[in-house]
Amino acid sequence: MTIDPTDHRRIRIPRDPDNDYTDDLAAERRRFVRDRTGVELTHVGRYSFDPATLPGNVEHFMGAAQVPIGLAGPLRIQGEHAKGDFYVPMATTEGTLVASYNRGMRLLTESGGVKTTVVDDSMQRAPVFVFDNALQARDFGRWIDDHLDDIKESAERTTRFGKLHNIRQYAIGPLRYLRFNYTTGDAAGQNMTGKATLAACTWIEENYPGDTKFLLSGNIDTDKKHSRMNMMETRGKRVVAEATINKDLLKRLMGVDTETLFWARQIQQAGSFLVASANNGAHAANGLTAMFIATGQDVANIAESHAGISYTQLLGNGDYYWSMTLTSLIVATTGGGTGLATQRECLEMLGCWGPGKVNKLAEICAGAVLAGETSLSSAVLAGDWVSSHEQLGRNRP
Amino acid sequence: MTIDPTDHRRIRIPRDPDNDYTDDLAAERRRFVRDRTGVELTHVGRYSFDPATLPGNVEHFMGAAQVPIGLAGPLRIQGEHAKGDFYVPMATTEGTLVASYNRGMRLLTESGGVKTTVVDDSMQRAPVFVFDNALQARDFGRWIDDHLDDIKESAERTTRFGKLHNIRQYAIGPLRYLRFNYTTGDAAGQNMTGKATLAACTWIEENYPGDTKFLLSGNIDTDKKHSRMNMMETRGKRVVAEATINKDLLKRLMGVDTETLFWARQIQQAGSFLVASANNGAHAANGLTAMFIATGQDVANIAESHAGISYTQLLGNGDYYWSMTLTSLIVATTGGGTGLATQRECLEMLGCWGPGKVNKLAEICAGAVLAGETSLSSAVLAGDWVSSHEQLGRNRP
Amino acid sequence: MTIDPTDHRRIRIPRDPDNDYTDDLAAERRRFVRDRTGVELTHVGRYSFDPATLPGNVEHFMGAAQVPIGLAGPLRIQGEHAKGDFYVPMATTEGTLVASYNRGMRLLTESGGVKTTVVDDSMQRAPVFVFDNALQARDFGRWIDDHLDDIKESAERTTRFGKLHNIRQYAIGPLRYLRFNYTTGDAAGQNMTGKATLAACTWIEENYPGDTKFLLSGNIDTDKKHSRMNMMETRGKRVVAEATINKDLLKRLMGVDTETLFWARQIQQAGSFLVASANNGAHAANGLTAMFIATGQDVANIAESHAGISYTQLLGNGDYYWSMTLTSLIVATTGGGTGLATQRECLEMLGCWGPGKVNKLAEICAGAVLAGETSLSSAVLAGDWVSSHEQLGRNRP
Amino acid sequence: MTIDPTDHRRIRIPRDPDNDYTDDLAAERRRFVRDRTGVELTHVGRYSFDPATLPGNVEHFMGAAQVPIGLAGPLRIQGEHAKGDFYVPMATTEGTLVASYNRGMRLLTESGGVKTTVVDDSMQRAPVFVFDNALQARDFGRWIDDHLDDIKESAERTTRFGKLHNIRQYAIGPLRYLRFNYTTGDAAGQNMTGKATLAACTWIEENYPGDTKFLLSGNIDTDKKHSRMNMMETRGKRVVAEATINKDLLKRLMGVDTETLFWARQIQQAGSFLVASANNGAHAANGLTAMFIATGQDVANIAESHAGISYTQLLGNGDYYWSMTLTSLIVATTGGGTGLATQRECLEMLGCWGPGKVNKLAEICAGAVLAGETSLSSAVLAGDWVSSHEQLGRNRP
Repeated sequence: MTIDPTDHRRIRIPRDPDNDYTDDLAAERRRFVRDRTGVELTHVGRYSFDPATLPGNVEHFMGAAQVPIGLAGPLRIQGEHAKGDFYVPMATTEGTLVASYNRGMRLLTESGGVKTTVVDDSMQRAPVFVFDNALQARDFGRWIDDHLDDIKESAERTTRFGKLHNIRQYAIGPLRYLRFNYTTGDAAGQNMTGKATLAACTWIEENYPGDTKFLLSGNIDTDKKHSRMNMMETRGKRVVAEATINKDLLKRLMGVDTETLFWARQIQQAGSFLVASANNGAHAANGLTAMFIATGQDVANIAESHAGISYTQLLGNGDYYWSMTLTSLIVATTGGGTGLATQRECLEMLGCWGPGKVNKLAEICAGAVLAGETSLSSAVLAGDWVSSHEQLGRNRP
Repeated sequence: MTIDPTDHRRIRIPRDPDNDYTDDLAAERRRFVRDRTGVELTHVGRYSFDPATLPGNVEHFMGAAQVPIGLAGPLRIQGEHAKGDFYVPMATTEGTLVASYNRGMRLLTESGGVKTTVVDDSMQRAPVFVFDNALQARDFGRWIDDHLDDIKESAERTTRFGKLHNIRQYAIGPLRYLRFNYTTGDAAGQNMTGKATLAACTWIEENYPGDTKFLLSGNIDTDKKHSRMNMMETRGKRVVAEATINKDLLKRLMGVDTETLFWARQIQQAGSFLVASANNGAHAANGLTAMFIATGQDVANIAESHAGISYTQLLGNGDYYWSMTLTSLIVATTGGGTGLATQRECLEMLGCWGPGKVNKLAEICAGAVLAGETSLSSAVLAGDWVSSHEQLGRNRP
Repeated sequence: MTIDPTDHRRIRIPRDPDNDYTDDLAAERRRFVRDRTGVELTHVGRYSFDPATLPGNVEHFMGAAQVPIGLAGPLRIQGEHAKGDFYVPMATTEGTLVASYNRGMRLLTESGGVKTTVVDDSMQRAPVFVFDNALQARDFGRWIDDHLDDIKESAERTTRFGKLHNIRQYAIGPLRYLRFNYTTGDAAGQNMTGKATLAACTWIEENYPGDTKFLLSGNIDTDKKHSRMNMMETRGKRVVAEATINKDLLKRLMGVDTETLFWARQIQQAGSFLVASANNGAHAANGLTAMFIATGQDVANIAESHAGISYTQLLGNGDYYWSMTLTSLIVATTGGGTGLATQRECLEMLGCWGPGKVNKLAEICAGAVLAGETSLSSAVLAGDWVSSHEQLGRNRP
Repeated sequence: MTIDPTDHRRIRIPRDPDNDYTDDLAAERRRFVRDRTGVELTHVGRYSFDPATLPGNVEHFMGAAQVPIGLAGPLRIQGEHAKGDFYVPMATTEGTLVASYNRGMRLLTESGGVKTTVVDDSMQRAPVFVFDNALQARDFGRWIDDHLDDIKESAERTTRFGKLHNIRQYAIGPLRYLRFNYTTGDAAGQNMTGKATLAACTWIEENYPGDTKFLLSGNIDTDKKHSRMNMMETRGKRVVAEATINKDLLKRLMGVDTETLFWARQIQQAGSFLVASANNGAHAANGLTAMFIATGQDVANIAESHAGISYTQLLGNGDYYWSMTLTSLIVATTGGGTGLATQRECLEMLGCWGPGKVNKLAEICAGAVLAGETSLSSAVLAGDWVSSHEQLGRNRP
C-alpha cells in the first residue's frame, strides 16, 4: 500500500501506556503494519517467549526475527575461565560461516586447544569539559587528578558492580576530555558507566572552584563505533586467543604449508597497514556477530568488537604460532538481552549465563575468532595458490 | 556438564550427508547439545520456518535465535528510490533504541522528511599479485590497464548482475594490489565479486606474458572490517541522508537549540578526529544493526557499514542542516538471508523485497540512521546541559 | 663523472680517526666529492663556524647548507612562558611562507596577541617485552606496575634531567609494549630516554622472576614518524595556541567574514576526517619546519610535530575563537643542534637559548603556527570565493 | 631586551619596496633584530650567496642558517634513473645519523646495490564544490566525468609541464571533493597544480549548467600533512627501494641474524599497526630530512614524504628481502630551493640538478632511506639482544 507523501499527518503506531508488552499489543501492531503496508507479518508473530520479559530490551514490540542458529564445535579451550570443549551456537544467514568456523575449531582442538586470556578490562564514558581557554582546562585537569578519590566515590555510589579505575585526560584547545575507565562486572556496562559518570560530573560541577560546563560524551568513548582509541586503550575486554599449530596438522586439515601461510601473512599485514584497517586478520566480525546474535549481546557493538590484531611467528621447527588479540570486545552475561528466551539458552549451553561468567564468554569468543582466522586464511591460500601445484615459499618474494 | 580436557577425542556434531536441513536433524543436534552440556534448547527449537529453506544460509542448523522486533515510524523519506512514509522494523535487545529512533523519525518527518541519495555503489574483491621486484609489478600494472576490457569480460562472464567498473591499483614493494570495483545488482555481492575476480585472475594468469602468483585477497578489500580505504573509496552503497531542521521544531521536540547543537558539534568533531573514529556521528551502528537483523542482511557487515561522516551547517536563519553520509553500507534485497521467513516479511513491509529494491533499502537505512543521530545528539545536550537552565552558546567557548 | 657499477670496490670517504672535525678534513672531503663527481662544492665550503663544535651533531663533515632566513613578526604572545612581542626567524626556500606567517602574526598581534599554553609534556621510549604467551605477558605487566618505583629509580639514575612519569602498557598476543613517558628538561630527550629506558629494561631483566627478552623499541614510540598514538598520548610538548579574532579586524586585514570562515571550517573538518589527516588545520608543517631549521631543532621531528587539531567556534558576537593544539611538538633549547653558530643566534633572538627556555620556545612555535593558520585559511577563501563578489554564508549549505 | 606587552604599536620589520633582496637590507634587518632583542646575528649574516637570487624563495631575508653537511656513501643504486655509486650529502644536526646511513649504504652496496623504482607519480590540488544537497553534488560529479577533456585542457593551458591525469571524486553530504591528479615534470608542483586547478575550477564555474561554489582546497589534498589518503593514492612520487641481503653479510656487517631480524619485524609490524603509524619502518624521516635540507627541497614536505611501508620476506636460503615503499615523496630538481647556492651544488654532486632528473633524485632518496632502515633496525637488535649472547629466534615467540 502506497503512502501519500503529501499527507502530513503522522499515523502513530499503536501503544498502550498502561501495559505495552503483551501479545495483544504486538498483534495490534502487526495489524497496523498490515493496514499501512499490506504485508502480513505471519512469521514475525510466531515468537515463543512472553512479551512481559521484554521491558528494557525493546519498545513498540511487535514480534521477533528468527535467525537460524548453526552449531559449531567442539572447540577445545585452555583458558583461565573457559576450560574444556565447547559447542558454539552461531546465529547467521551467511552460508559457509558455520562450516568454516567448525573447520577451524577442529584444527585448534586437534592442536591441543586454543589458549585464551583476558588481559585487560575497561568500559568507558568520556565526558568533555569546556573552558574559556587551555590554561583553565589544564588547571581543571590537575584538579581532577587531585580529587580522584572523591570522584571515584561519587561515581561508584551509583552502582553495585562498576569500579572506576582511572580517568585518562585528553586536551584539545579549551577542552578537557576525561575518559573514565571502569570495570563493570558481568554487564557490558555502557549504561552503568553512563550513570556513574554523570554522577561524577555532577559532583565535579558542584565542587570545582570555577565554572564548568560539560557534555556527557565528547565522542572519544567511542561508543558504537570503531576507533584507534579503542584499539589502543581497550574497550570492554582485551582478550587474546593463541595457539601453536603443528606444521603437519595444518597441511593435513587445511592443505596449506605453514611457510606459505607466513609468507602470505607478510602480504596481508602490508595491505592492512596501508588501508588502516580495524583488524589485520581475516574476518573476526563473522564469528563474533553470529555469537552475539545467538547469546543476546548488543550486536551493534560489533562496530567496536571486531577490531583486533593478528600476531604470528613461524617457529624454528616449522610450526606456526598464531594469536589474535581482540582489543575491544564488549560482552555480557547479565543484563541487556542475555536473559531473553533463546539467548539465555545459548549462553547456558556455553556455561556462560549469569554472574561470574563474562570472562569465560570473552575467552570463548576469542577462541572462536581464532578458529575462523585459521580456516579462512588457509582457504584463501589453498584455493588459488596451492591448487596450482606450485611450491610456495620458493623464489620469493 | 564438564568436559575432560585431557580427553582428546572430538565428539562430532550429528550430521546427515544426505539431507542435513530437516526438523529431525535440528532436534537431534539440540539433543546432542543437551547431552553434552545439560542444557535443554526449548526456545531455540521453536522456529516457525521450514529448515529446507536454509541451505546456503547456515550449516549444522539446530534452531533459531528469536530477536525481539520493535516498530519505529513513520519516517517520511523523500528519496530517489524511497518515497513516502515508512514503518521500520528494528530487531534489538537494547532498551530505548527503538524509542530513540522513533523520536528522531518524528522530528525528520515533521521537518518535511529526510532526503536520501545513493551517490556511489561499489563492491570489491582485491587480489594481490606478487612479483620478484617493484619494476615487474609496475609493468604488470600497466598491462592490467591495457587489458581492462578482456579482464572485464572474463569477470562478468561468471555473473548475470555483476559489472566490473574499474580496477584500482595499489603498489607496495613487489606487490600489486588490484581492487576490483563492481556493481552487483540487488545482492550484497561479496560472493559474486569473489567468483568474478577469481575468473579474472585466472584469465590474467593465463594471458600475462610473465609469471604471476596471486592471493585472491590481500586484505585491502577490506571485507568484514572497517578501514579508511572503505570510507574513502566506498564499499557497498555510499548513501547520504540529509534534512534541514527547523529551529523551533527542534526546540519543541528535542528541547535543544540549534545553536547549542552546532556548538557541541565542533567539540564532537574534534574528539572524533583525535581518536580516528570510524564515524564522527553518534551511533549509526545501533539503527543499522537493528535493521540488518530484521531484514536478513549479513550483520557482520556492520563492521564496515557503520562508518560514516556527519556534516552539518547552522544556517543563517537558525535552522540546522544535517547530513549523514554512510560510506560503506552493504545491503541486499535478494540473496543471503533476505528470503528467510521473518526477514522477508520485514523487507516486504518496507516495500524492499526482491529485485530492483536495493537502493530503496539503502535510502531507508540512511534515513533511519539520520533519525537516530538527531535523537541521541539532542539527548546528550538536553540532559546534562540545557537542563541546567543555562543559555548555551554564550560566553563560548 | 660516471661511476662504473660493475666495479665492486667501494671508494671510501676520507676520514681521520684522530681528529675528524677540522677545516682540512672538510676540504679533503669536498675534494673527494669533486674527484668522484666532478662537482666543485664552493658554497658548501663557505661556512663560518668552527668544525670543532660539531662532534655529536654530524659525521663526515664537509661543509654547510645555507638556508635563507626570513624575518617575521612581531608576534604578540600572551603565554605562561613566552610574553611579549617576538620576531621569528624562519629558514625556508618556499616563497610566500614568511610573508604569509607575517600577515597572520599581524592579525594575532592586533587581536591582542595569541595565548599559548603547554598543557602536557612527555617524551618516550617504548620497549617491547616478548613472552611465550599472553598470560605471562599480563603477569609481567602487573609486576611492572608493582615495581614502578624501582624501575623509575634505575631509569633516572642515568640522567640529571629525565624524570619517568609513568609507563603505559599495550598488549598484543604474547607481547607487552611498555611506553615509558618522561619529562626531559630542556632537551628534546630522545637519547636521554633511550639510555634511561635501556637501564630500566636491564634492571627489569635482572630482577624479574622469569625469563624476559625485549627490543628497546617495538615501533610504538613512535619516533620520527607520525602516529595516532602520538596525537592522543602526546609526544614532546602538547601546546595550545588560541586567540579570539575580532570580526571586523579579520575582514579588514584578511578580507574574509568570520561567518564564511566558520562555514568553510565545517567542510575542511569533514575532509580531514575522511582522509585521516595528521592535522585538520592548514599547514602547521610550514612554519614549524622553518623555525626548526633556523633554531637547530631535529628537523626530522617535523614528522611528529606537524600533527595537530584545530578547534574553532563562531561566537555570538560574530568574533572567531581559534585554537590550534599541537599534540607532538618536539623542541629543545639545549643539546642537539641548539648550540651551533647560526642556530644559537636564532634561539637567542627569541630569548630561548639554554636551560629553562623550552616551554617558551614551544609556545612561540605554537603561536607562529596559529598565525600561519589564520593567513592561509583566509587566503583560500578570499582568493577563490570572496573575489567573486558573492556573499558567502548565504544559501548555505 | 624586554618588550612591553601593553604597548600596542607594532614595530615593523624594515623593508624596501623597490629592492628588498640586498645585502644592505639583510644587514638592516639584523640590526633591527639587535635593536629589538639585543642579539647580534653574526653568523646568520655570513652567507656566501647573492641575495638577488632569493626572490621566490623567502621574504624579509636577513641571513642564512648554516646546517652542517655530512657525507655518506658510496651507495650503489641499480635503478631505472639512478645507476651507479652515489655519495650523499646529508644536512643534519643529529649525531650518528650520517654514520648510521653510511653503514647501511655499505651494507646495500656490498649486497650488490639497492634496486629502485618510481612506480607512481601524482601531485594534487583538491577543491571542493558545495551544493544544496547530495543529489546536486552527484549530478555535478557525473558532469565532471563527462567533461574531463575540457577540464584537462583548461587546467593544462596554465602550465608547460603539468599534465592532468585524472580527477578522483569523494562525496560527503552536499559536498563534492575533486582530487585533481597531475604529473608536474621536475618540479614538486604544488604551485603549478594550484594554478592549473584554479583555472579548471573557473572553467567549471563558467560552464556548469547550475550554480557552483568551491573552495580551492577542502583539506583532502593533503598538503603539508600526512594522511592515509596520501599513503594510498600517492602524493608526489611513489618509489620503491628493495634489496636482497645476504645472510652472512648482514651478520658480518651488522652483527644480526636475518632470522632474528624477521622475528623482530613481526613485532614491529604489530606495533605500527596498533598505533596507526605513518610508516611501519624505522626512521625514514631522518635520511629524507637531511637530504631535503641539503638539496633545497621544501622541507615541510617531510610531513608527507616520511610515510612509507616496509615489506620484507625471509627467503628460503636465509637471505632477507627488504623493501621500503615511500608513498608520498615530494621532490624536485627544478624550482623551489633547488637553484640556491649550496643546494644546487648538492644536487649536482648527485647528478640531479635541473630538468629530467627528478625520478633519479627520488630513487636516490628511497635508496638512502632503505640504507637507514637496515642500519637502525639492526642496531636495535644487536644492541639489546644479541649482545646478551643469547641465540635469537629460538623458543619463539
